[in-house]
Amino acid sequence: MNRLSATGSDAEIWCHTHSGTAYDFEEYLDIVREFHGHAAPGLLIGGKMVDVALSRISREILFDVICETDSCLPDAVQLLTLCTIGNGWLKVVPLQRFAITFYDKYEGEGARVYLDPLRLDAWPEIKNWFFQLIPKADQDSDRLKEQIRAAGDGILEHHRVRVDPEYLGRKKSGRKTTCPVCGEAYPVAQGKICRACDGGSPYIGTTDKKDKNME
Amino acid sequence: MNRLSATGSDAEIWCHTHSGTAYDFEEYLDIVREFHGHAAPGLLIGGKMVDVALSRISREILFDVICETDSCLPDAVQLLTLCTIGNGWLKVVPLQRFAITFYDKYEGEGARVYLDPLRLDAWPEIKNWFFQLIPKADQDSDRLKEQIRAAGDGILEHHRVRVDPEYLGRKKSGRKTTCPVCGEAYPVAQGKICRACDGGSPYIGTTDKKDKNME
Repeated sequence: MNRLSATGSDAEIWCHTHSGTAYDFEEYLDIVREFHGHAAPGLLIGGKMVDVALSRISREILFDVICETDSCLPDAVQLLTLCTIGNGWLKVVPLQRFAITFYDKYEGEGARVYLDPLRLDAWPEIKNWFFQLIPKADQDSDRLKEQIRAAGDGILEHHRVRVDPEYLGRKKSGRKTTCPVCGEAYPVAQGKICRACDGGSPYIGTTDKKDKNME
Repeated sequence: MNRLSATGSDAEIWCHTHSGTAYDFEEYLDIVREFHGHAAPGLLIGGKMVDVALSRISREILFDVICETDSCLPDAVQLLTLCTIGNGWLKVVPLQRFAITFYDKYEGEGARVYLDPLRLDAWPEIKNWFFQLIPKADQDSDRLKEQIRAAGDGILEHHRVRVDPEYLGRKKSGRKTTCPVCGEAYPVAQGKICRACDGGSPYIGTTDKKDKNME
């Protein structure tokens, strides 16, 4: 891993990408803001979690990632690795535990990193935020950011896990056909009409596209 | 929208980001490869879909995005807008229709863009890929890429939709506590133990962290 950051800063390195590019805390803040819109605390800690996970797996394997929450943390993975929602190498399993697992995509052996609540007593601002002990408006975001930076990997734990084979590989949606109702393509396995036309549409009102192209 | 691309190229613009940065086809290919690992056809078309969606909504609103498939397309949204999985402004509704909707996050009014199967007869290589009519190994990826580029928005349709109110806003997971089994934080609403310890774990074998920190 590099000693100097991507821009040559000699500030302490906060995290690395899968390919070894290093970011100090402020540089990482910048890429977080650019991708995620704001410097969410969970995503700052997430950068360090990715860094720990990367350091605990062999560089010889092809890895996939499980993220156990859909809040913030998936974006740390997407920013620092090639594992994304769209390529399926990142899977979100919405247990709402603050944890990520980097694992051998064929064998399932991996390293799981999580935030250890027992370690938060030393970091009251992180604890306030993590357990939502005080309203967001009353939290001190600068102090929170400083505690996250100072705590580093000291609030994290890691252990080895084996991913259930049912999570290995990617589910293919299979052969597609055209839905007789909406006229769009959908997987044949869904049935005679597509799941959206079968009551699963996230839209209300007209679905017959009568108003197509109208402004 | 800009006439010149982000790097000053005068090649035809393929797509824009939410803030108006323009990419020609080759520039967009580069950012796709960097984020997604490879130039997936669905993500190339996805860039044009995002471009059409952005052009059909008012720039005065705060928008969220629904993506109707988890394959490729979410990454076009994440690359070109601030809507991501981790900030919740991008929601994946896994209907496996090739469509995205950009909508007013408070009111639900939006523009939906989809690939129209009827328009694929003019583009046999896109049709082969989209309906998986021939094995992937037999598809001509260069020809596919060229057809995607030449087709542009000519294979897309768009119409106005209203998003069901149940999809508006973000579900909060609520107050957290510590699970008596795993010792990690989880939402109280899940019950007396966390969902992972209650049979929802994606891991097999030991879950008691006995092997914690062992290499």
